[in-house]
Amino acid sequence: MEALEAILTRRSIRHYTKELISPEIVQKLLEAGMSAPSACDFQPWQMVVITERALLDEIPAFHPHAAMLPEAPLAILVCGEPETSRHWQQDCSAATQNVLLAAHALGLGAVWLGIYPRENRVAPIKKLFEIPEAVTPLALIAIGHPAEQKPPQGKFKPEKVHQNKW
Amino acid sequence: MEALEAILTRRSIRHYTKELISPEIVQKLLEAGMSAPSACDFQPWQMVVITERALLDEIPAFHPHAAMLPEAPLAILVCGEPETSRHWQQDCSAATQNVLLAAHALGLGAVWLGIYPRENRVAPIKKLFEIPEAVTPLALIAIGHPAEQKPPQGKFKPEKVHQNKW
Repeated sequence: MEALEAILTRRSIRHYTKELISPEIVQKLLEAGMSAPSACDFQPWQMVVITERALLDEIPAFHPHAAMLPEAPLAILVCGEPETSRHWQQDCSAATQNVLLAAHALGLGAVWLGIYPRENRVAPIKKLFEIPEAVTPLALIAIGHPAEQKPPQGKFKPEKVHQNKW
Repeated sequence: MEALEAILTRRSIRHYTKELISPEIVQKLLEAGMSAPSACDFQPWQMVVITERALLDEIPAFHPHAAMLPEAPLAILVCGEPETSRHWQQDCSAATQNVLLAAHALGLGAVWLGIYPRENRVAPIKKLFEIPEAVTPLALIAIGHPAEQKPPQGKFKPEKVHQNKW
């Protein structure tokens, strides 16, 4: 898929078929994520690849927008190291967006579930995935072969554009 | 350019030719930026398109990594509305990454200059571009036709990948 088309047509996909995702595809998603830019090239991210059914099924108990996870064959938890960089949140968000775009380009469907800065999501995620104290989970990406299709959203708004000064 | 190739080969480009960037291309970059996902679809971004030479030339006086701006024909300032969403920083970072990827896919070169949370960058940027009190500049993207070529960086690190639990 062409890059601009991928950017403009990507949508949040929350229904998936039962088909599993191969390790080769997971590798491509991880490479895409780690290709993001980062302040001072600190690369302050860490990624947890989640395929264990029991772990995925447990998340909706504490995350209000995670109802698709029991359907998803895969999730990638993007974590950051706040002590490494004061731009960690931005860098890890760019990595998350890369994974979402790569998934779409590879014919998969995915959706970004916000974790940080909501403590009632951060704490149970850290406990469930045994994340070290110095690491903060930023976002969880649910991924699968899409069982729904959505048209491009067309979110460009001219009133959000300013020329030279506000 | 194919989407995965764009993601994997994008680099920070800091030297540009004197060629200007057409309004049609600027429009594509803005559409790419605003196609990013956002928490609850709040779209908490605003974008300032900067082409005025005097404004671009002034930024290196207070931003230590902006030496390329006097060479750049264009910059896009991505701003957020923190009161709109507690995920504003993540959403605006995804939008910034979309602009960077679109620029690369269109044959341009670009680089992400961090602004927020460094107050000694946020304050002078707000003053120079007359940004309203409730709006925060997150990142400045310098853009031009590339006058340097860089090979793909290959930043994948297997030690940053964890399986199911840390």
